[in-house]
Amino acid sequence: MRNVKLTISYDGTNYQGWQIQQKKPKDLGKEKTIQGIIEKVLGEILQEEARVIGAGRTDAGVHALAQVANFKTGSNMPTITIGRALNALLPKDIVVTDVQETRPDFNARFDALYKTYRYQILNRRCASAFNRFYQHHIPYKLNLKLMKQETRALVGKHDFRSFQASDKKERSSVRTIKRISIKEDDHLVNIDIEADGFLYNMVRNIVGTLIEIGRGRFAAGSMKKILKAKERRLAGPTAPAKGLCLIGVRY
Amino acid sequence: MRNVKLTISYDGTNYQGWQIQQKKPKDLGKEKTIQGIIEKVLGEILQEEARVIGAGRTDAGVHALAQVANFKTGSNMPTITIGRALNALLPKDIVVTDVQETRPDFNARFDALYKTYRYQILNRRCASAFNRFYQHHIPYKLNLKLMKQETRALVGKHDFRSFQASDKKERSSVRTIKRISIKEDDHLVNIDIEADGFLYNMVRNIVGTLIEIGRGRFAAGSMKKILKAKERRLAGPTAPAKGLCLIGVRY
Repeated sequence: MRNVKLTISYDGTNYQGWQIQQKKPKDLGKEKTIQGIIEKVLGEILQEEARVIGAGRTDAGVHALAQVANFKTGSNMPTITIGRALNALLPKDIVVTDVQETRPDFNARFDALYKTYRYQILNRRCASAFNRFYQHHIPYKLNLKLMKQETRALVGKHDFRSFQASDKKERSSVRTIKRISIKEDDHLVNIDIEADGFLYNMVRNIVGTLIEIGRGRFAAGSMKKILKAKERRLAGPTAPAKGLCLIGVRY
Repeated sequence: MRNVKLTISYDGTNYQGWQIQQKKPKDLGKEKTIQGIIEKVLGEILQEEARVIGAGRTDAGVHALAQVANFKTGSNMPTITIGRALNALLPKDIVVTDVQETRPDFNARFDALYKTYRYQILNRRCASAFNRFYQHHIPYKLNLKLMKQETRALVGKHDFRSFQASDKKERSSVRTIKRISIKEDDHLVNIDIEADGFLYNMVRNIVGTLIEIGRGRFAAGSMKKILKAKERRLAGPTAPAKGLCLIGVRY
């Protein structure tokens, strides 16, 4: 069996997220997921079932610039042909940007050392007619300087329970954030977070908290207090999915 | 009567262009135009009929970053209120970015001295999952240096009949192109054309010709020959509407 690594870019607007959902029988086939569509198209190309493992299980409406995935196959079709066939058959909002044969034991999910998510905020009075599915529009002024200061409390190894979706508990809520940056250019604010792993809704809950800080609802020092409290109800609301994008995975 | 000037940004993907169409009775109300929707919403806001004049009559699928329009009204509603009401009631793919009261005789169409259109080409092997409605994807290599050289023949006052849609003849096909620039950044090629006026499909026909030059189908010197010949059939094909955007109007 060969092991094939894919790099995938997608507009998540019209999908129920990356992962195939385990639903009640009546819902079967109704949900549209990125993984599901890629597996279906790979099945047609390779004439065998393919199970695709993704590095990040992006949620409904969340995008990816460079998701990484892998699948095993008995086919000897050249990788360049697999890539062309995928892009010819996949819908236009999913693009495979790279296909490589990789070592047999490579696992896109468990071998990922760090993943980087970007959250995009358009911070000006007027909304954009063009990027409305990729940016969260905030018309009021944000204090970016304070937001940047507050991110410092998050960098490093911490228990991020305060930023975990309250209905999705994982065994451990300890993760390591390697880097957070906030950059602004022409009213577009990019918040990048690189970590060894993310809890469910973690980036969107951190961003929701940063927005409360930026608009003056939470005072300086709030982020540290919220992190230490380990209580979801103290953090800000979950920022909308559409602003979020998986921009890279490091192995 | 007050005269109100609007600056409007729109994603033209889902519209039949700027201008209200004169169609057969059976088609009435079926076409969706930017002008038509703005007039409808203004009617609701001002409680009177408003006729909106736009600077550029963008075609179906063509976008605008800063279309300029004006309308006369007997209402004394403050401009800031008109702007807020418009953005609250217009669909999300049309955004009014500025509303100003202007001199009584201002006409957005006839007073425009220069308009600038931008054509966006994504020139790389892979398509983009995100900007697929705003960029024309060309996977083969373009010779940008030659394309830039060839644009020089177009600058100035010329008869642009070779680049006019063959089914839409205007009284005169003489126009003045003030500036053409081709800039590339990270595989994105922006072709900007500023002129005192444009014939129907003129930008898309010039771009279609530049693409033939860039891919080596038309030799150096072709643009000058095509321009002089005043024959539409010698120019390249019409480039797709989705790559085109009205980026500014000067008065």
